[in-house]
Amino acid sequence: MSARLAILNTFLRRVGRPLLKRTKTPERARRDFDLSARLVFRGPTKDASPTTLGDVPCLDVRPVEASGEAVLLYLHGGGYITGSARTHLPMVGHLARQTGARAVIPDYRLAPEHRFPAAFDDAKAAWTALMQMGVRPDDILIGGDSAGGGLALALLSDVLRSGQRPAGLFAFSPWTDLTLTGASLAENAERDAILPVERIEELRALLATDDELADPRLSPLFAEFPDAPPIYFQASESEILRDDTLRMAERLRASGARVETDLWPDAPHVWQLFRGWLPEADDALDRVAAFADRCLRSSSRRSEN
Amino acid sequence: MSARLAILNTFLRRVGRPLLKRTKTPERARRDFDLSARLVFRGPTKDASPTTLGDVPCLDVRPVEASGEAVLLYLHGGGYITGSARTHLPMVGHLARQTGARAVIPDYRLAPEHRFPAAFDDAKAAWTALMQMGVRPDDILIGGDSAGGGLALALLSDVLRSGQRPAGLFAFSPWTDLTLTGASLAENAERDAILPVERIEELRALLATDDELADPRLSPLFAEFPDAPPIYFQASESEILRDDTLRMAERLRASGARVETDLWPDAPHVWQLFRGWLPEADDALDRVAAFADRCLRSSSRRSEN
Repeated sequence: MSARLAILNTFLRRVGRPLLKRTKTPERARRDFDLSARLVFRGPTKDASPTTLGDVPCLDVRPVEASGEAVLLYLHGGGYITGSARTHLPMVGHLARQTGARAVIPDYRLAPEHRFPAAFDDAKAAWTALMQMGVRPDDILIGGDSAGGGLALALLSDVLRSGQRPAGLFAFSPWTDLTLTGASLAENAERDAILPVERIEELRALLATDDELADPRLSPLFAEFPDAPPIYFQASESEILRDDTLRMAERLRASGARVETDLWPDAPHVWQLFRGWLPEADDALDRVAAFADRCLRSSSRRSEN
Repeated sequence: MSARLAILNTFLRRVGRPLLKRTKTPERARRDFDLSARLVFRGPTKDASPTTLGDVPCLDVRPVEASGEAVLLYLHGGGYITGSARTHLPMVGHLARQTGARAVIPDYRLAPEHRFPAAFDDAKAAWTALMQMGVRPDDILIGGDSAGGGLALALLSDVLRSGQRPAGLFAFSPWTDLTLTGASLAENAERDAILPVERIEELRALLATDDELADPRLSPLFAEFPDAPPIYFQASESEILRDDTLRMAERLRASGARVETDLWPDAPHVWQLFRGWLPEADDALDRVAAFADRCLRSSSRRSEN
């Protein structure tokens, strides 16, 4: 563990988690995350410009390094109630430069104003718009973190079932099971440096009705993934959502997918956002870039055959 | 006001000030500031190495840009109970590169473990050690912020009265009056984005006895400054310590000193620490660098005559 990771964990336990524990409204949580992100997250933000895809506002990130046809479709996290293309731009902008891909970050609609399946519908609309623009599925790498990681997997399931196959998918600590049956929710309740498990049911109630929670568009743990492309997960051993990753990986493997999972022992939920400062984040993103490179090269080889 | 300054003010009001309001012990405050500094402050930190000056541990910052004899002696802030050479290194490291000076940042002893006049004694010991190493007074620029700004002025008064004249002094929102008679303490109590005035008497009690508060080594507002070099202050109109700067500037002018004061309308106390991110901080440090350049050039001209 780097010295900076120790600092970050202490800081999040002292400031971040108490703040999340007492924040009264989703609007306030959204504003806090936005402010913190702008203050703390580091990365290139100049390559981005606003666009829309299928009526969904997006940030369109086009680094000078982007040469080929590859598109990174990235779905940001924030519990479906916070976060934005802007909060995640420094990290995604860096990934775009690293992978030499254009990136698209949809500002999908957030709860509680827009409940299930608004986020899924917007992610799907962005995908469909890319198809209509002539982007080939196997030039697209889907990514996401936390709620956005779940959304990325839900989208993957949907497009696979309609016969479209992206180049691959990566997710950071995806939230894949809104029925909350993972053992790590309780096991890591104390160790998790940032997420207060006490509020997860309250959060969930803002998003969907009880009947909808196991819907594969919200809980991709229960989705089908026919002929899945390569999949890469990163999560932390000490976070409450650890088992949302591990069980998802198992399920995907059981359905025949090639899945890699890297676990960090004591990183906070979606530590990758601290890139440019935290060694563990830079390391994690380097591995994503290597994965992206393998996916996109092998997928273009495949389509040339 | 830049968009980032608006973000910073909101963030400090939402997170920083409530934290300072409820922090129970000086040790905790020290640790919080250290963590926050490492997470948020940006600037070059690789030019620094530990050293001691007159038995006082210091960071010695030697950027490759440092060519001449100039030394920036910088006294960090933190209410005499928190802060360190390390918390302020990113900002001071940047200033050293900008001015082409070597910088020395003493880790003077902190209260409540070490009460008045420990901090002053350490600052003076560092100065004396520089003299003994053959550094000329007029190659030294003294700087400081907040409590460290007061300490810088206290040191200046002391060395002037012993006939040594540094090249100049700059201070960011110096705390110059521990008798707490500035009108801005009350006037800006609500507007100040970070400092909770409610706790200033409690803080003061950790530092010195009531009898010591007007001592010129603690409250340089009451000190003498014979034949003072050029002095440059930066402060915010909206901070509780505004009048500690404005009254200090008046007093110095009355004693014949050339004093420049720049006020920013709505910046938080010692916003300069957010350099590399906050435009108002970069602007402020650019002005310090220009001031330093004028002082150091005119002081070397003077000594060549």
